[in-house]
Amino acid sequence: MNAEIIAIGSELLTPHRTDTNSLFLTDQLNRLGVDVVYKTIVGDHRERLTATLSLALERSDVVLTIGGLGPTEDDLTRECVAAVLGRQMHSDESIAEGIAARFRARGLHMAEINRRQALVIEGGVVLPNPTGTAPGQWIEYRIEDRGRILALLPGPPRELKPMFEKWVLPRLLAAVPPAAICSRVLRLTGLTESAAEEIAAPIYTRYENPVTTILAAPGEIQLHLKSFGKNPEEAQAHLDDLFPQLEAALAEYIFSTDGSALEEVIGRCLQAQEMTLAVAESCTGGLLAQRITGVPGSSAYFLGGVVCYSNSMKEDWLEVSSETLAKHGAVSSTVARSLAEGVRRRAASTLGVGITGIAGPSGATQEKPVGLVYLALASPDGTQVRELRLLGGREIVRFQASQAALDMIRRWLAAARKPS
Amino acid sequence: MNAEIIAIGSELLTPHRTDTNSLFLTDQLNRLGVDVVYKTIVGDHRERLTATLSLALERSDVVLTIGGLGPTEDDLTRECVAAVLGRQMHSDESIAEGIAARFRARGLHMAEINRRQALVIEGGVVLPNPTGTAPGQWIEYRIEDRGRILALLPGPPRELKPMFEKWVLPRLLAAVPPAAICSRVLRLTGLTESAAEEIAAPIYTRYENPVTTILAAPGEIQLHLKSFGKNPEEAQAHLDDLFPQLEAALAEYIFSTDGSALEEVIGRCLQAQEMTLAVAESCTGGLLAQRITGVPGSSAYFLGGVVCYSNSMKEDWLEVSSETLAKHGAVSSTVARSLAEGVRRRAASTLGVGITGIAGPSGATQEKPVGLVYLALASPDGTQVRELRLLGGREIVRFQASQAALDMIRRWLAAARKPS
Repeated sequence: MNAEIIAIGSELLTPHRTDTNSLFLTDQLNRLGVDVVYKTIVGDHRERLTATLSLALERSDVVLTIGGLGPTEDDLTRECVAAVLGRQMHSDESIAEGIAARFRARGLHMAEINRRQALVIEGGVVLPNPTGTAPGQWIEYRIEDRGRILALLPGPPRELKPMFEKWVLPRLLAAVPPAAICSRVLRLTGLTESAAEEIAAPIYTRYENPVTTILAAPGEIQLHLKSFGKNPEEAQAHLDDLFPQLEAALAEYIFSTDGSALEEVIGRCLQAQEMTLAVAESCTGGLLAQRITGVPGSSAYFLGGVVCYSNSMKEDWLEVSSETLAKHGAVSSTVARSLAEGVRRRAASTLGVGITGIAGPSGATQEKPVGLVYLALASPDGTQVRELRLLGGREIVRFQASQAALDMIRRWLAAARKPS
Repeated sequence: MNAEIIAIGSELLTPHRTDTNSLFLTDQLNRLGVDVVYKTIVGDHRERLTATLSLALERSDVVLTIGGLGPTEDDLTRECVAAVLGRQMHSDESIAEGIAARFRARGLHMAEINRRQALVIEGGVVLPNPTGTAPGQWIEYRIEDRGRILALLPGPPRELKPMFEKWVLPRLLAAVPPAAICSRVLRLTGLTESAAEEIAAPIYTRYENPVTTILAAPGEIQLHLKSFGKNPEEAQAHLDDLFPQLEAALAEYIFSTDGSALEEVIGRCLQAQEMTLAVAESCTGGLLAQRITGVPGSSAYFLGGVVCYSNSMKEDWLEVSSETLAKHGAVSSTVARSLAEGVRRRAASTLGVGITGIAGPSGATQEKPVGLVYLALASPDGTQVRELRLLGGREIVRFQASQAALDMIRRWLAAARKPS
């Protein structure tokens, strides 16, 4: 079954507000095996709202509307739905009395306009709103001999969520044929979106179920798998068929299969392997340390870092020799190596990372363009150095450099775990 | 004129992702006097995308699509638009060559599939993408004798924003009838939303034009003013009437009136006042250094930082005595002071900042709850220390601590500028 969500309110068409209720509703619907195929945001405008509702009711099995149930002239959802369905509305006196009681309890006078909230569409079931005044409505109707469902929900999340869970979910469970959706995400780094596609497409395109989507996020590629079944076991079985094939094909690039971020993954490995880490950053300016320490409990394995923006800090704090700096320049593989080894030695950590590069927009030369970054990882095995040539603005270069450094740590830890 | 925005991508119909590009685009369109009247989110699904595009092209003057321009099978925007408009596509060799060159520059092989990104719709103008591979397209067409505009934009915000600003905005400016909207933002920190409202509301509620909106963002409060006029001069005059009154009333809390972030403001002041800065961070774990160094050119005034997550790093690198640590604990005003003074002395900077605190979720004690943070600023005048009690999760506590540290620097620099 397919669903669509309509968020109603002119404030959702300003630069300052976005709809987030639909994320909650999508999650709830997916758990029932109902796919959300459209989301529409429309203002408090009679003609546009009517057109949007009319289209949705025609094309989707389940339509959830959010907002426009309040008492003001702007709240048009009830009357537009009644118009589209060709049904009358009547005033429900018990709702009107309930709203009046809420006002009395707060010592307030109820303005007459609030009675609009007591209007119920013919054939509609009232959904109580324990945390606000506007009740919701549940309406079943048929188009072309197929049963459809429409639920009108209030806009404030603190009203929508309890109403959905208490009144809508049990009705959906009864109305929707049992089905299930399972989903899983593979997170990769160290390759491009098209390279991931080239490896993965020959495998996943053989399956219509699960549906696989490839997404590029900063410094990573994600494969989202979503499988469908008549019940959770069947959906899981479809997932279990495809997932290991993709996992095997993309193995070395995968950093997580449970949604974890790269910094969480390396944190867990460092802790399990009883190792510690310290970092020395130039061009990333503290971003690497900030990402590592963003993980709760990171003080168990992260000893600290140095942001050495000046040459004198590289010399004084990390024992990079002034000859090395003069001979190779601050952005060089030799300095990256010295930073990694210096911070490892000074902090007495298992691993030390050094990063130096040109984040831009200034500081580039003919030989050393923006995006040139050297990464070094000093370990008990010795020191590895990588040269990166990254594209993009300052923020992107810095993020990708930090991502590549974390991936270098991840790969070293994975190799260290293998029995030799 | 009316616009609508279509965000394309199955990931935007999952519980995990939401469209935020449309907020940026709405802001840009509003500045031109163009209202956004619909936003639609649709998956990578040929039939549904075609239906959505067809409806939008019929009912709106300006249609902006986001996403679906990548190289994979899922990227359907180009071909669906061509189908709806009944136009052919051709392969643009210069685009194909540009994409190939990007791959070569990074030493990568270009998968054949990337050539899909070089397909241009008949009559379409190519919008270059300096930060990614997929170019955008600008298409003008007529329906019922009215000119309409369609722009195809990429999904990643770091690609969409520069492309819009550089290539779409000038074209829209030429196409859209001039209307006069002026806007201005006051950015404040160091007070709550309700405190800002209490000061500002008695002033701004006397005006219907400009319209003033108060928004809370992490670590700051923003006042957005928007004025309307028959011409730009009239709109500006409305703004110039209200703005100085708000500026005077909120003076000490205002860190910028031109949109600048707090780290940019202190960067400009440090440079103008020929001063330098170094930081020692415990609970913020590099976030402060990362924000300061996120500003291009920050190496002119930022010497470096230390992320001292372990006590031994506090002792070895910042000369915090082990007696101080044992007596007061790492989270104490005394240690914050030692960190600030230690980093200032070691880096030989004008100013030194020390931060220590409990970011949570673990590490709290009865006397030292999550959110307790000590900030110190060491300067030629001596050292100031502040105690903060912040609310929220790890990320919010860390951000607000970094924001308060930057504000402490801002206030010191402002005082130092005043003739004594």
